[in-house]
Amino acid sequence: MQHRSVKIVATGKYLPKQKVTAQQLADKLDISPHWIARKSGVMTRYFVTDETASYMGAIAAQQALTAAQLTLADIDCIICANAVAQQAIPCTAALVQQHLQHLQPPLGLPVPIPAFDINATCLSFIAALDTLSYLIQAGRYHRILIVSSDIASIAMDWSNHESCTLFGDGAAAAIIEKSSDTAAILASRLETYSSGAALAQCLGGGNKHHPQEHPAHPERFVFQMQGQAIYRMATKILPGFVQRLFEPVGFTMSDMKMVIPHQASLMAMRLLRKQLHIPEQALMVIAHDHGNTVAASIPMALHEAIQQRRIQRGDRILLLGTAAGFSAGAMVLEY
Amino acid sequence: MQHRSVKIVATGKYLPKQKVTAQQLADKLDISPHWIARKSGVMTRYFVTDETASYMGAIAAQQALTAAQLTLADIDCIICANAVAQQAIPCTAALVQQHLQHLQPPLGLPVPIPAFDINATCLSFIAALDTLSYLIQAGRYHRILIVSSDIASIAMDWSNHESCTLFGDGAAAAIIEKSSDTAAILASRLETYSSGAALAQCLGGGNKHHPQEHPAHPERFVFQMQGQAIYRMATKILPGFVQRLFEPVGFTMSDMKMVIPHQASLMAMRLLRKQLHIPEQALMVIAHDHGNTVAASIPMALHEAIQQRRIQRGDRILLLGTAAGFSAGAMVLEY
Repeated sequence: MQHRSVKIVATGKYLPKQKVTAQQLADKLDISPHWIARKSGVMTRYFVTDETASYMGAIAAQQALTAAQLTLADIDCIICANAVAQQAIPCTAALVQQHLQHLQPPLGLPVPIPAFDINATCLSFIAALDTLSYLIQAGRYHRILIVSSDIASIAMDWSNHESCTLFGDGAAAAIIEKSSDTAAILASRLETYSSGAALAQCLGGGNKHHPQEHPAHPERFVFQMQGQAIYRMATKILPGFVQRLFEPVGFTMSDMKMVIPHQASLMAMRLLRKQLHIPEQALMVIAHDHGNTVAASIPMALHEAIQQRRIQRGDRILLLGTAAGFSAGAMVLEY
Repeated sequence: MQHRSVKIVATGKYLPKQKVTAQQLADKLDISPHWIARKSGVMTRYFVTDETASYMGAIAAQQALTAAQLTLADIDCIICANAVAQQAIPCTAALVQQHLQHLQPPLGLPVPIPAFDINATCLSFIAALDTLSYLIQAGRYHRILIVSSDIASIAMDWSNHESCTLFGDGAAAAIIEKSSDTAAILASRLETYSSGAALAQCLGGGNKHHPQEHPAHPERFVFQMQGQAIYRMATKILPGFVQRLFEPVGFTMSDMKMVIPHQASLMAMRLLRKQLHIPEQALMVIAHDHGNTVAASIPMALHEAIQQRRIQRGDRILLLGTAAGFSAGAMVLEY
């Protein structure tokens, strides 16, 4: 069953206090700001100072709750859809719940809403929305809060200028519930090609490499990517992937009012647009002033599309991206 | 909707090559093996040498596939349900897929099955089985492989004898599909009380504490638990939790042929048995010769219950546990 009567009720976003311009980054890295403009095109991104992933996620969630005129008491499940957890144990969703209970006005006893994480790297938001929509459809949960919050700046390889001028930190949140109108998820698809698992990776941070290896092997604890190989893999996979997404439901790209892509890089999005024949005005781009905010990137671009009134209720939109794994993921929804 | 026509088709298990006895651990820690026997009761556990979490998970998965007379080509989604990822990026499920493609006999082109992680710490298996069952029920996926694989030994606090004599490494896997008989998930429930988020934690390993903090703060990179406070919280929450699980479906504990608990510790399971009035022969205990294998603990105990013929098709069983978060989770199923 592809169709799910699930509605995105409201969204929220949080950007760290510290804004970092291309000029500032150029000074730090001793490179030209024009190189950054030309190569990554990210002129502004935000890096955390004292913010944690769960704190950013909770602020984004609070914004979504306020927009929907809801409180935490109206939510019956919290999903954290990050690429990287805040800490090894417990899951980040429990830490988001903890922050939210402090942020929200007191509601008597804290509600023990289930809280767990879903991780498909940069596609975590699509994977979470896709998966949890079936639980909304079945009536298991009435209203779910999905939070994506990532901090790329902590594991940046500062010697790789292509990669470190691309990323930013931040969070976005969405509240979903059963739709009582035409708003719905119309199709969704996820494919993982693990032959590309090493094309984008951070080897540390899990149970394979202990932090005590850091002095001898600092490269294991930073994000490493093979940009060219990823482009090649994406180019090869995406056209067929989009066809497999659209075919069962009879859509074509021209049926999409707006495409909300993972903001991998401006270059990757240009490639995407050209290859999939997406009109320029139908592609939501926020990478130039947000950077690639990892798993927060897709919900953040969705939030911006809603805020800037580039999508309206009733519009058919496509969420689309690739992620480390290597995975491709997409969802067609009527907003 | 509580009832889902979902069947656990087969299970598998992997224990690391290196067996560690209470005597060996006593020698290493310079404590008495009798203290370990009395305090943790774990006489045997296994620690990885060269095994990774994805490798262990793939071997357990292969065992489940063989038992079900299936191959990877019969699976259309892979979920990794660990407490801790193998590495920060990508998700562990992609790495399990990669291993499985090498282990399984060649099947032509690798199948790009979606692969992502679900994390509810020690309750990850219940959370994954619970969540994905709705996608099986709805026909989104036909057959899902759920793998839980954790390596506790890498982040053990060797100065905390109570904690470090408890844990073991290992993996377990289960294959689920739409049921064509009475096998089903009858009820499930998950509650997170984030006021207890700090009772069991490992602060490092995520985007909050960089490994470069390790020399100055080694305690941030080991698992810390407040055993007594966790017991108190579990004691307070569990009776009401089980009531909230059973009430909507009209069950009592005496309807359960077998209870498969998270193997937190032998002491915790004695408490559970007493408090919830579970007959001794109805509680599946494997902690004494496996240790607490974190998220792998519940599916591993389920696998052992099946292998030892303590549960048969048609039996009503209860999976039950608590996890860092603090969370309680449970599921009633007809096996």
